[in-house]
Amino acid sequence: MPEIRKDPVFGRWVIMASERGLRPNEFLAAGEEAGYACPFCPGNEELTPPTRYFLPGGDGAWRLRVVGNKYPALVPEGTTDSRGDGVYNRSDALGFHEVVIESPEHGGRLEQLPAEAVAEVLKTFALRVREMRKDKRIRHVLIFKNHGRNAGASLLHPHSQIIAMPLAPLRVTQEQDGAAAYHRERGSCVYCDILAAELAFRKRVVAENASFLVVAPYASCFSFELSILPKKHLSHFEDLPETEADALAEVLKAALGKLAASLPDLAYNLIVHTMPVQEPEAAHYHWHIEITPKLTRVAGFEWGTGFYINTVSPEEAAEILNSGGKYKV
Amino acid sequence: MPEIRKDPVFGRWVIMASERGLRPNEFLAAGEEAGYACPFCPGNEELTPPTRYFLPGGDGAWRLRVVGNKYPALVPEGTTDSRGDGVYNRSDALGFHEVVIESPEHGGRLEQLPAEAVAEVLKTFALRVREMRKDKRIRHVLIFKNHGRNAGASLLHPHSQIIAMPLAPLRVTQEQDGAAAYHRERGSCVYCDILAAELAFRKRVVAENASFLVVAPYASCFSFELSILPKKHLSHFEDLPETEADALAEVLKAALGKLAASLPDLAYNLIVHTMPVQEPEAAHYHWHIEITPKLTRVAGFEWGTGFYINTVSPEEAAEILNSGGKYKV
Repeated sequence: MPEIRKDPVFGRWVIMASERGLRPNEFLAAGEEAGYACPFCPGNEELTPPTRYFLPGGDGAWRLRVVGNKYPALVPEGTTDSRGDGVYNRSDALGFHEVVIESPEHGGRLEQLPAEAVAEVLKTFALRVREMRKDKRIRHVLIFKNHGRNAGASLLHPHSQIIAMPLAPLRVTQEQDGAAAYHRERGSCVYCDILAAELAFRKRVVAENASFLVVAPYASCFSFELSILPKKHLSHFEDLPETEADALAEVLKAALGKLAASLPDLAYNLIVHTMPVQEPEAAHYHWHIEITPKLTRVAGFEWGTGFYINTVSPEEAAEILNSGGKYKV
Repeated sequence: MPEIRKDPVFGRWVIMASERGLRPNEFLAAGEEAGYACPFCPGNEELTPPTRYFLPGGDGAWRLRVVGNKYPALVPEGTTDSRGDGVYNRSDALGFHEVVIESPEHGGRLEQLPAEAVAEVLKTFALRVREMRKDKRIRHVLIFKNHGRNAGASLLHPHSQIIAMPLAPLRVTQEQDGAAAYHRERGSCVYCDILAAELAFRKRVVAENASFLVVAPYASCFSFELSILPKKHLSHFEDLPETEADALAEVLKAALGKLAASLPDLAYNLIVHTMPVQEPEAAHYHWHIEITPKLTRVAGFEWGTGFYINTVSPEEAAEILNSGGKYKV
């Protein structure tokens, strides 16, 4: 049974999950060998935990499938109580951990799917979060995607993950606190102000439509980092109107397509930043998506300081991505 | 000229340093090829910026050398003023960036040096920090070591880095705040309390002598993470009495030696956690060293939450390291 331990100085939580050490991360290297059975391919459904949700394809097949993670970091058992342990604290690793298999196609990439299929993936994210938030023990839900081995993916077949947690994790609290402080000081939403600044400046814009803006953020921690901002203020991603999912799919395809065109062997993490699920809609917070290509490794300096070094400015990154030029790592 | 930009939500600073993109990180792959000239080897001193400090070896040679980083993240020019830029903020990337070449031997590892040579490296760290803190524009100095390509090292030859910054970075502020909150609440130093708890529990202890304790921390973010704690309360690493450097060298050699014995192709980051340099000695903060082996890659979940998943508990890690067993990644 995994447990959660709290760092007594940073207030950071760590999930101790020995079972996850058994994950088949050799699959990526061995992925294309003869006899390899991908657990996310049609026909191999018995290799994953049971289906929790799916969209039907033709002839009894599926075109999208949601399953429990076979090696969950959090499990739907236990309580949210934290127990003191001398100077330390621990609690049950209570939560949900699901995998969204984005397509039946083993070798595809998310941005290569038709816009309607990408929109279905996004609608499924929102639907699963709305389902998870019904459990009042759940405080926050993280939607994320690791693409490529350098970004921590252990399986090739295109998929995303959803993790529901019994607490708002440190980085979410920091982001909420920062946005709330800005709102108290200036009376406006920091993300709405960023939107206005980027639409005026233009040199960091990478894609845009009527509902969304994609920019290389001013203080990008990573080279070629991108941020997708909805133009309309909304705190909770899972409350996105279904009609907006198509517009989001369009800019997401454009953003990932430009990254794939300019960066060789693109590996990236995609993270949906959103409000803790039990909180009401708020004036200070605005959901958004962060895409961080993994070109270099985070080293001692970054870990020791939380201070990042980026060797490609966001203005240079936007110029390269918009020209379709290749970047030599 | 590099500049520092501030993230308007997290308050996180990013150094935009295009010049560092030119670093020879192919050196590691090409390191042993014929004709390769390691800039840190004796005889190649003209390949690095000038020597800032050295310890003489026999016959006009050196046994340790400190040089400026050829691709500095921070430069000793500019002011500490932060300038508003609409919703954003930027400032000069003012500071120092030095490299400590730990030994003339190209292929050695820090823990393989004689204890006296390791003690000299540690004394050199403290000496350089005491030199840098004379510049009152400098607020914090980070001493760190990246060993191995997976930990972000770009050169094989054993070396460490020292970066002096014009501000206390986010993670340092968080650590200071966490330790100060604990001290206000309980009236004791959290690190002194951790020392007492670990000496009583013993199952996470990996090395010890009269002055230092090495433990696998209770809430380790990474598998086989280690923490070196001085038994005597002291806020500033650079104020370590010279007589204590020998004892520190002994436990550092023991800790790195056990990691190298149990983990194949060990790559790690070593970080000295210490008080911002212009602050006085304080009851709430206690310097220490963090060693984080890099066995897996940090993926979307960790970046999105600041919430870590560890598949080897610190109790298991200590048992493996103390038995000398090999760990299969």
